[in-house]
Amino acid sequence: MYVIGLDIGGANIKSADSDGAARTIPFALWKTPQLLKATLQELLSGFQRPDLVAVTMTGELADCFPTKATGVDQILSATEEAVAPVPLVVWQTGAEFLPTDIAREFPLLVAAANWHALATWLGRMIPDQNGILLDIGSTTTDIIPLENGIPIAEGLTDVERLLSRELVYTGGRRTPLAMIDQQVPFRGQWCPLAAECFATALDLYLLLEENTENLHDHDTADGNPATQDNAYARIAQSVCCDVSEMTRAEAVEVAHYLAEQQQKQINQALNQVVDQMSVPPMAVLMSGSAVFLAEKIIRAHPVLSETVITNVAEIFDRSISNAACAFAVARLAAERVRI
Amino acid sequence: MYVIGLDIGGANIKSADSDGAARTIPFALWKTPQLLKATLQELLSGFQRPDLVAVTMTGELADCFPTKATGVDQILSATEEAVAPVPLVVWQTGAEFLPTDIAREFPLLVAAANWHALATWLGRMIPDQNGILLDIGSTTTDIIPLENGIPIAEGLTDVERLLSRELVYTGGRRTPLAMIDQQVPFRGQWCPLAAECFATALDLYLLLEENTENLHDHDTADGNPATQDNAYARIAQSVCCDVSEMTRAEAVEVAHYLAEQQQKQINQALNQVVDQMSVPPMAVLMSGSAVFLAEKIIRAHPVLSETVITNVAEIFDRSISNAACAFAVARLAAERVRI
Repeated sequence: MYVIGLDIGGANIKSADSDGAARTIPFALWKTPQLLKATLQELLSGFQRPDLVAVTMTGELADCFPTKATGVDQILSATEEAVAPVPLVVWQTGAEFLPTDIAREFPLLVAAANWHALATWLGRMIPDQNGILLDIGSTTTDIIPLENGIPIAEGLTDVERLLSRELVYTGGRRTPLAMIDQQVPFRGQWCPLAAECFATALDLYLLLEENTENLHDHDTADGNPATQDNAYARIAQSVCCDVSEMTRAEAVEVAHYLAEQQQKQINQALNQVVDQMSVPPMAVLMSGSAVFLAEKIIRAHPVLSETVITNVAEIFDRSISNAACAFAVARLAAERVRI
Repeated sequence: MYVIGLDIGGANIKSADSDGAARTIPFALWKTPQLLKATLQELLSGFQRPDLVAVTMTGELADCFPTKATGVDQILSATEEAVAPVPLVVWQTGAEFLPTDIAREFPLLVAAANWHALATWLGRMIPDQNGILLDIGSTTTDIIPLENGIPIAEGLTDVERLLSRELVYTGGRRTPLAMIDQQVPFRGQWCPLAAECFATALDLYLLLEENTENLHDHDTADGNPATQDNAYARIAQSVCCDVSEMTRAEAVEVAHYLAEQQQKQINQALNQVVDQMSVPPMAVLMSGSAVFLAEKIIRAHPVLSETVITNVAEIFDRSISNAACAFAVARLAAERVRI
């Protein structure tokens, strides 16, 4: 069966088919929800006609929807219209696909369920083991306990997952520095950070040479390219300095401190999730656009560094890695759904 | 002498004449620096022709300028061209006006000097006393020690003032919740806040009924109006909930907690500044768009509540209060500059 998977977010729509072709397009759902149907149709036109479409989403969180239930309903309606007459199924945190009419009855299981699809799919790499999936993306981090390869997360909705620390709202790119910590070491003192989005985690890892420069990447705090020089200027601005007031070495020191704080934050959550597991994890799966951070954290961890560690991002094409949740629902649906 | 004062910021230009007429217009300097001259000309056309123009600024911090020196230079050039042939003088933290050519030689004294003009002008209300000016705006808080009414700040540039706590980067409107604290009490636990600008300090004080609702005010985290219902929804979103997942009472509890944390932060800085003064303050001047917060903090302070407290915002018209720094340089220049 040939299936197309969709992961409909608030800023991007990701698609992948069950054969491994993938395509992601930017789409400002919060700005133009009425264009969702047409955008999906255009996206689907790049694939051959599927037997089935499987969808997961986070876009119901967009500002344009007063509640998640409204968002789920409207996204499902637009998707149904875009794919008709091809049947549509919906992933949810109950760990199975639902037809759209039943999915609408459980909006909080359908909302933000893409992490669960990914964990279910990746978990099959360790079918007989207890393990952990550590997925660090641009904005958030998922820490999912797996028992015999099956996700056994304590939280299902985002807020439950924040409370259980299975969702850590920090990532390798978009997190503003002043949301990592409130102050940094500077001139031998603690300097409060400006409460602004002057610089983000991306700048830390650019300046620390963990990210490569990209002159064409303007998805930064100020829209200037993702270069080390600009990262230096943005970090200086975070304490209201320009580059004449903060040396590059001082900016690197600030970056070191904040990178360490961010990794500590993820590490603490990781320990909390591991402590909740009845059997200690024997395997770790790492994924996400900031998998380099996951790698650092796991390799430095006294217990998890001794397990079988798999960098999932190294196994798959970059296009599939970027659309991993869409690929996950496509593959899961191809295997599980009978039409 | 008839003087017009200008306070050129990154998002607004404020103007006031020495007679007390004031006008503020939004201007996205960071987006269209090339339109500054024309915008100033239009703004000035609303006043009679002045004998002198006095300027102070914070706009040199805008992203469009690689350094503050470049920003100061370009803002002064545009302003000179806009006001010519009327002479132009520039306030700086050396506590006097400079002609533009000399001002350009000391960009770090000219940059972000508007707080100093305000403190110098307001300080004259307590000419023989030691006191404190507490100005809480939409985004930042200034805590300025005054000796015989004259500002004796330890820091002059923004970063020096962050280090001395005379500048606290928190305010009554624009501060994102996740930059006030990283977690909030929810469902009997500590819940981390999403590292996003989903809600701001404005929402706290709307929900706590310290700010009045304004259906026409869209200067909010999501662009929806400044109402209590929207504030409730935005606060819920800060922990990834919609209003079906967080009761209004729970949102009020979150708002109480964060408002308290913000006031604690200002209070700690206030104590640090007061502790540095050689003579304890006998008077407190309060100002700024969030003067209600200053009022709360001072009235609850064990020492400062016993001093002579003046709410400056109550003395002046709202239009002058909103353009206080522009009015300050206009009045100071009218008295001090001889042309």
